[in-house]
Amino acid sequence: MWGEKVKDTCAVILAAGDGKRMCLGRVKIFCEVLFKPLICWVFENCKQTGISDICLVCSKDGLGRLKDYFGSGAKYVIQEEKLGSAHAAAQAESFLRSGGKKDVLILLGDVPFVDAKTIADAYVFHESEKNEVTVIAANLENPFGYGRIVDDSGRISIVEEKDATQEQRKISLVNSGAMWFRIEALLSVLDKIDNNNASNEYYITTAVNLLSKSGCYIASASHVILGANTNEQLLHLNEVARGKIIAAHNQNGVEFLSESGVVIGPEVQIGKDTRIFQNVTLKGKCQIGERCVITPGSFIENATIGNDCEIRASYIEDSRIADGVRIGPFAHIRPGCDIGDAVKIGNYVEIKKSVIGNATSIAHLSYVGDCEVGSKVTFGCGSIVVNYDGKNKYKTKVEAGAFVGCNSNLISPVNIGKDSFIAAGSTITDDVGEGDLAIARARQVTKPGYLRQKRGNNNP
Amino acid sequence: MWGEKVKDTCAVILAAGDGKRMCLGRVKIFCEVLFKPLICWVFENCKQTGISDICLVCSKDGLGRLKDYFGSGAKYVIQEEKLGSAHAAAQAESFLRSGGKKDVLILLGDVPFVDAKTIADAYVFHESEKNEVTVIAANLENPFGYGRIVDDSGRISIVEEKDATQEQRKISLVNSGAMWFRIEALLSVLDKIDNNNASNEYYITTAVNLLSKSGCYIASASHVILGANTNEQLLHLNEVARGKIIAAHNQNGVEFLSESGVVIGPEVQIGKDTRIFQNVTLKGKCQIGERCVITPGSFIENATIGNDCEIRASYIEDSRIADGVRIGPFAHIRPGCDIGDAVKIGNYVEIKKSVIGNATSIAHLSYVGDCEVGSKVTFGCGSIVVNYDGKNKYKTKVEAGAFVGCNSNLISPVNIGKDSFIAAGSTITDDVGEGDLAIARARQVTKPGYLRQKRGNNNP
Amino acid sequence: MWGEKVKDTCAVILAAGDGKRMCLGRVKIFCEVLFKPLICWVFENCKQTGISDICLVCSKDGLGRLKDYFGSGAKYVIQEEKLGSAHAAAQAESFLRSGGKKDVLILLGDVPFVDAKTIADAYVFHESEKNEVTVIAANLENPFGYGRIVDDSGRISIVEEKDATQEQRKISLVNSGAMWFRIEALLSVLDKIDNNNASNEYYITTAVNLLSKSGCYIASASHVILGANTNEQLLHLNEVARGKIIAAHNQNGVEFLSESGVVIGPEVQIGKDTRIFQNVTLKGKCQIGERCVITPGSFIENATIGNDCEIRASYIEDSRIADGVRIGPFAHIRPGCDIGDAVKIGNYVEIKKSVIGNATSIAHLSYVGDCEVGSKVTFGCGSIVVNYDGKNKYKTKVEAGAFVGCNSNLISPVNIGKDSFIAAGSTITDDVGEGDLAIARARQVTKPGYLRQKRGNNNP
Repeated sequence: MWGEKVKDTCAVILAAGDGKRMCLGRVKIFCEVLFKPLICWVFENCKQTGISDICLVCSKDGLGRLKDYFGSGAKYVIQEEKLGSAHAAAQAESFLRSGGKKDVLILLGDVPFVDAKTIADAYVFHESEKNEVTVIAANLENPFGYGRIVDDSGRISIVEEKDATQEQRKISLVNSGAMWFRIEALLSVLDKIDNNNASNEYYITTAVNLLSKSGCYIASASHVILGANTNEQLLHLNEVARGKIIAAHNQNGVEFLSESGVVIGPEVQIGKDTRIFQNVTLKGKCQIGERCVITPGSFIENATIGNDCEIRASYIEDSRIADGVRIGPFAHIRPGCDIGDAVKIGNYVEIKKSVIGNATSIAHLSYVGDCEVGSKVTFGCGSIVVNYDGKNKYKTKVEAGAFVGCNSNLISPVNIGKDSFIAAGSTITDDVGEGDLAIARARQVTKPGYLRQKRGNNNP
Repeated sequence: MWGEKVKDTCAVILAAGDGKRMCLGRVKIFCEVLFKPLICWVFENCKQTGISDICLVCSKDGLGRLKDYFGSGAKYVIQEEKLGSAHAAAQAESFLRSGGKKDVLILLGDVPFVDAKTIADAYVFHESEKNEVTVIAANLENPFGYGRIVDDSGRISIVEEKDATQEQRKISLVNSGAMWFRIEALLSVLDKIDNNNASNEYYITTAVNLLSKSGCYIASASHVILGANTNEQLLHLNEVARGKIIAAHNQNGVEFLSESGVVIGPEVQIGKDTRIFQNVTLKGKCQIGERCVITPGSFIENATIGNDCEIRASYIEDSRIADGVRIGPFAHIRPGCDIGDAVKIGNYVEIKKSVIGNATSIAHLSYVGDCEVGSKVTFGCGSIVVNYDGKNKYKTKVEAGAFVGCNSNLISPVNIGKDSFIAAGSTITDDVGEGDLAIARARQVTKPGYLRQKRGNNNP
Repeated sequence: MWGEKVKDTCAVILAAGDGKRMCLGRVKIFCEVLFKPLICWVFENCKQTGISDICLVCSKDGLGRLKDYFGSGAKYVIQEEKLGSAHAAAQAESFLRSGGKKDVLILLGDVPFVDAKTIADAYVFHESEKNEVTVIAANLENPFGYGRIVDDSGRISIVEEKDATQEQRKISLVNSGAMWFRIEALLSVLDKIDNNNASNEYYITTAVNLLSKSGCYIASASHVILGANTNEQLLHLNEVARGKIIAAHNQNGVEFLSESGVVIGPEVQIGKDTRIFQNVTLKGKCQIGERCVITPGSFIENATIGNDCEIRASYIEDSRIADGVRIGPFAHIRPGCDIGDAVKIGNYVEIKKSVIGNATSIAHLSYVGDCEVGSKVTFGCGSIVVNYDGKNKYKTKVEAGAFVGCNSNLISPVNIGKDSFIAAGSTITDDVGEGDLAIARARQVTKPGYLRQKRGNNNP
């Protein structure tokens, strides 16, 4: 949506990670905020801005995983040694020289909340000011640990925490690590950057100090600059993202009772007037329709759910649910299901890799797997599609209007015809034709007064 | 409880809503806080104070729904045009003239937390001060958006945000919208109110400015004045109500581990020494006894639960549970159940529209629907009452002391006699007498070494 | 870990409670924070410091319960009358005289967060300062209700809230109630303490005032001094403990998405890189391995769980789970289970008091109770071990590689041989040998077109 503005630009994402700085046993860029690695947040912010020419500076170890994520959507250069951010940026030199672009956005691969609007607005400012470099900055109440922006009559420089004077440490305006450079200007100073500082690293921030036409764009919200050097900070990033995503859906007309325990991933869409109770997890790519109700304990991952659905305390994974469907409580829709309109899936029902026709009811204690089910079918309580014989899996088809009795087994593969009726307690091994009745159970024998006579017999 | 004090009063609730101001696609007064529409909070506050003569000023569109809520408990007048709060109040003129009361409480239909104690205390103040009008006010840290109370040597006036001077905007004492008027005084100024203000509306607050004997009652808590103009504010109202309700139950001796995810509706009663874990929802009209334990994931709606019950991660709807009952985890009591003392309902058990006698056990994977079950009955694991044949539902009766074997079906309608025994795996179609043994299953046939011979046969 | 430092010390815990001050219907020392009584927090802090010689001053009523908790790990003296903390300490006089120790730590039985590090560091300070008494103190923003520490040129005294002057009430440094005394010094002043104060109680704090060589050790965190006189404060203690425990695990490499609804008891260990979703309860003594994933709604109590397990929305109680096990969603592992490596326990499966061999699969809607199951067994959907006949419980054995068909019953006691096969829908009453096929069901009968002819027949 900002594509036109940034059409003459490219981006370099510093994603080489750093063995010294890890959270939770992972290289930082692969640490997750709401199930999504930091580097993916950064990459996506870049794409959303409309920048398509993206170069990732990565470590040898990280390359494979980054290619898995972004494939041909990015270019990759390896940073062999970890000599600092300027050294990292220098690895992209030929990318910068050959790309024919005017400006480059430098992003840190572990700072996930520099969003598309901030990036684009910073670029508009960068352009209108005719800057050689524009640093995206924010004011922080507690700036400890961050590089401070020193403004010397309009020309800015950045001082790292370790190198800052007592006076400079009081500055609340800090560097996000994200910067717009005129490519020509950046290339002209890259080899002038030294490592005379507390860490003996080549800092990209030194490039800022070396350029005369510099400025900084102050982001409207301080959270855009947040990164994570500790597990505690990573948890904080998760809480911040969680709150902001809930607030955004709320503004768009989604109803929440409480933020408690609501975890919604960044790639979830929710329609208006849908009510989300507390303690609901929406993970991965989900699309939820309008006027749905989702009650506590629901865990939905990579699912598409239509309008007017009611999901109560259920697990739904990688499936499509149509409109007006009622699910749960305590149902489990496993991957590969396609559930039609107005279907009812009740408590303790597991559906796996099946197509369920419109208005079908599977109300209790059932398992339907590898099955093609027509419309208006009734699966009685405890009915089971026996799709596995210990060696192989088979498919079964249940046609429209069929009634499958309680506690019955359909031994796959088997066809249950239209409007047929399976008696309760039957184990069905052979096909049942349209309108047929199938029964496979023993006759009842009642032994009158048996219990009075056999008081000692424990196991009739 | 304040009935005597307010016996000479009536109330007018401004409930016409306003198309311009909506949350979540609803007219504001119908937006919900903890499942209860704002207008119902307001109405109930009024009733709890002991005011029985209540007039709702409503829009044509809202009238039907308001009548559904309050029926003959209120009088209704229509406000055809939305010309402001004074214009709304004026619609109630004949209600005020003909009621024979001395004072009227004006309430806004979308300000839910002006509670009975505040209303009654404000009236005592109003009376003792012999005021013509008493505004219920509160001090707010951030008064932005609220009408400020200007105190001019004891006589007060109210200035709306839009009409306030810079100096007035600094006043932290703000109008809740709730006011006590001497009826005579109000009627004497209603036609003197003009609409010379930023919104060109007739404000009820102008009435305050016109009366000479005015005062304001400052509520002890600032949340009493909260309203919602945005979805964000509505979520905030929910969180405020949630916290206050938990705190009140806690003070009364209910034990909480954490507020996280605990959502308790305003019409829930809970006995002493009951322990509520995190992530518990108590919705609608619930009555929970003493010394119960309710674990995370439980969702209880419109249910009465006795003393000493343990509810673990279960759904309970519109049912009555007696004393000493253990339910769950993952049980589902559907509407219309009456569960006796010391019953055990275990995991994956669904009960629907049934009476369950004392000390009966339905411990696992069962469905009991449309059933009358005696005391000390045992339903074995996987036993099912087959109450539906695809067309109709039938009733079954299981008498005291009966033992229903695992994975058996009781095909309704059927009577299972006292102390009878149903063998596991049986499908029971005929009545079983007292002390009888019923069995309906095939004999076991074992084919020795069959699997070694038939290695290719996949589906025996 | 501080054992060497404190080897010449003992402790007296004031645990007589007080009928006047109760939370939630319990004597205060038995009120629980994260499922653990306050007195147990205090006792354990003491033990963790390395102090093994502990005397509990208790009431007659409390003695039995305290002995249940601590047995011979403590000595017990009864305080017959409740005349104040100095009177309580005086009951331990013979314990102090006969123990041969140099210093004693006095602790209040209802102040749970004075941790081992604080106690040990205070002792090091006490020793290095050669103090007769060292009070463990903390600075509080709001010191209301706490005894203030008055420092008079190095010699300190403590003034209770009720006895403090306006000036003294402004002091933010307050008494935790925990104190190190030179035993000799304490004994020398115990009989000089009077009860001339607002409560007419003998305060242990008066001993501090009477000793000339006194000092105070300021704890690094203010929460160490928190106690609970109200239900509200008790809930606050729970929230504080909850947050601190989550933070500690997080620092140790456990991944959290959100603190919401996460309740982890103080005796839970969790391995690195385990991910805990929101709304997870870990209660009692739990040990969770590395790289596990535990999703919302899981409730785990007194369980040991290996590495690389996935627990989804399940209840696990008093059981051992090995490595690489997948459980849930909506599974229930009841007490007494021992689940082998790489086992899969799927939705709606209940396991009770059973041993499950490696790589066995019990994937859906099953109950396995009182059972010894070998490795690589498959329990089909809806299969049930019928361990109860209404009178007694029996054991069943299912050997390695057996396949138990869907909706089948194993009537205990029965032996199912190695690599045998039970056909779906069978009720098995007799042993099945190695490699045998067992079947116990009726043949299917299909009545063509039956439904078309019998439209009036509702219950075939």
